[in-house]
Amino acid sequence: MNHDISEPGPRRVGQVKEVTSLTNPIIKDIKALSQKKERDETRSFLAEGLKLVIDALELGWTIKTLVYAKAAKGKPHVEQVALKTIATGGLVLEVSEKVLSAITRRDNPQMVVGVFEQRYANLRDMTPTLGQTFVALDRVRDPGNLGTIIRTADAAGASGVILIGETTDPFSLETVRATMGSVFAMPVMRASVAEFIKWQKATGVQVVATHLAGAVDYRTIDYRRKPVVVLMGNEQAGLPDELAKEATALARIPQQGRADSLNLAIATGIMLFEARRHLLTLDGKA
Amino acid sequence: MNHDISEPGPRRVGQVKEVTSLTNPIIKDIKALSQKKERDETRSFLAEGLKLVIDALELGWTIKTLVYAKAAKGKPHVEQVALKTIATGGLVLEVSEKVLSAITRRDNPQMVVGVFEQRYANLRDMTPTLGQTFVALDRVRDPGNLGTIIRTADAAGASGVILIGETTDPFSLETVRATMGSVFAMPVMRASVAEFIKWQKATGVQVVATHLAGAVDYRTIDYRRKPVVVLMGNEQAGLPDELAKEATALARIPQQGRADSLNLAIATGIMLFEARRHLLTLDGKA
Ligand SMILES: [Co+2]
Ligand SMILES: [Co+2]
Repeated sequence: MNHDISEPGPRRVGQVKEVTSLTNPIIKDIKALSQKKERDETRSFLAEGLKLVIDALELGWTIKTLVYAKAAKGKPHVEQVALKTIATGGLVLEVSEKVLSAITRRDNPQMVVGVFEQRYANLRDMTPTLGQTFVALDRVRDPGNLGTIIRTADAAGASGVILIGETTDPFSLETVRATMGSVFAMPVMRASVAEFIKWQKATGVQVVATHLAGAVDYRTIDYRRKPVVVLMGNEQAGLPDELAKEATALARIPQQGRADSLNLAIATGIMLFEARRHLLTLDGKA
Repeated sequence: MNHDISEPGPRRVGQVKEVTSLTNPIIKDIKALSQKKERDETRSFLAEGLKLVIDALELGWTIKTLVYAKAAKGKPHVEQVALKTIATGGLVLEVSEKVLSAITRRDNPQMVVGVFEQRYANLRDMTPTLGQTFVALDRVRDPGNLGTIIRTADAAGASGVILIGETTDPFSLETVRATMGSVFAMPVMRASVAEFIKWQKATGVQVVATHLAGAVDYRTIDYRRKPVVVLMGNEQAGLPDELAKEATALARIPQQGRADSLNLAIATGIMLFEARRHLLTLDGKA
């Protein structure tokens, strides 16, 4: 497939393409972003909603293509975003609702969709300082869980989310949706188990690993003395030994009732709000 | 449609019906349980997975129909569940994988599915005692959120989930899935706003309402002196005034970062583990 979705260049300035056909090659390429292979190849992803697109641009993300519904034409915010897209060499498409439905695989699609450049932060560049908290996820599988965790990390004031091993794609449509825009605000990093352990040792962070077999009540750990990484095992298998044995502490959240375990995103939320308990206050930022 | 899915009676004892056709009227009725109208009319719902079905029977739920894949035939646990189903007047169906896929709307369906009788607890019968915690949800909309909250309430050792106003159906396939079996363990009640307030006053429970505009840090509230209801506003609208003004306290979870708010299920989890902080310990039940 032709991947020249954006082809930046002066000749497009001021141009808005109207597209109503689902067989248009640009639309086909955008639709193909629902597949991981295509996202990987083009290093692109889709984000839905005008508010999200505005936030992304304000946070300095590069928009490759802006797609909006005919019905949104002329709305001041849409016009501003379109101008900004063109000014930075992106493409602007005005499409039918049918096309938007096809791109987003939704019956009632958002009126505005953006194709953005993927961006990962580099774990080796991260030098945690006291008061910073990271989440590390071992082979997280569920797109909704990952998205919710990125959103929760943002709300808790964490400094980044580290994906260890083979994980679900943070740039899938489902994950991006579940982040509610936090995918643009929260640095996301990838690492192998070995890379993570190496970084852990080099930086001296405190790694609090959480799993069912953890021996220490999560509320008894001292989260104040060093930067903290909350490390969560995956939905099925729990934490691999390599990671568990290098952890500073093996924590457990006490549970009652018959449920086997908390949902991964809930457990991560509870751990994060405990690790940052001393840093979160009602009156303002820490 | 014919709703006599179970028709209990001695003539069925020992009988297992083989079904491979999607047009079989019993299968059509089971498939129709994906619709709320049909679930309401028949007061039935579907739960997937052998483990869940076993748990449900152990917890005393009534199974109307047991459906299992040909491939599961003869497995000891499946046989036991089939015998129990027949003994209590239920119907047992052995079906093709195609039929199971159609019933569960999944490509790789579970091998065992049960049709159960819906069951709500009655709020008026609930007389909370000290150490008990309830979750009340105002017009919760998202099936996954509701299911995750029921699961989390179970894990936290809560005593029930109260659905206020028009909410998503706790017996939808998506919600039941997200509960991971806790739908069978956690009492679920329904109430109008007026009924809830009446119950609150009659029982003298402490209602801690959580929303963004709450004034009190959720960690400064005394959860020990009375039974507690953690009341959560809905995903879009927050808490209606009627409920907010009757609440014992209006709590807020401090947040940082750009995310608008925590996901409803995460916020509920954080509130529940705070409200039960003094009751949850690593060594055993409270
Ligand atoms: Co291609
Ligand atoms: Co019918």
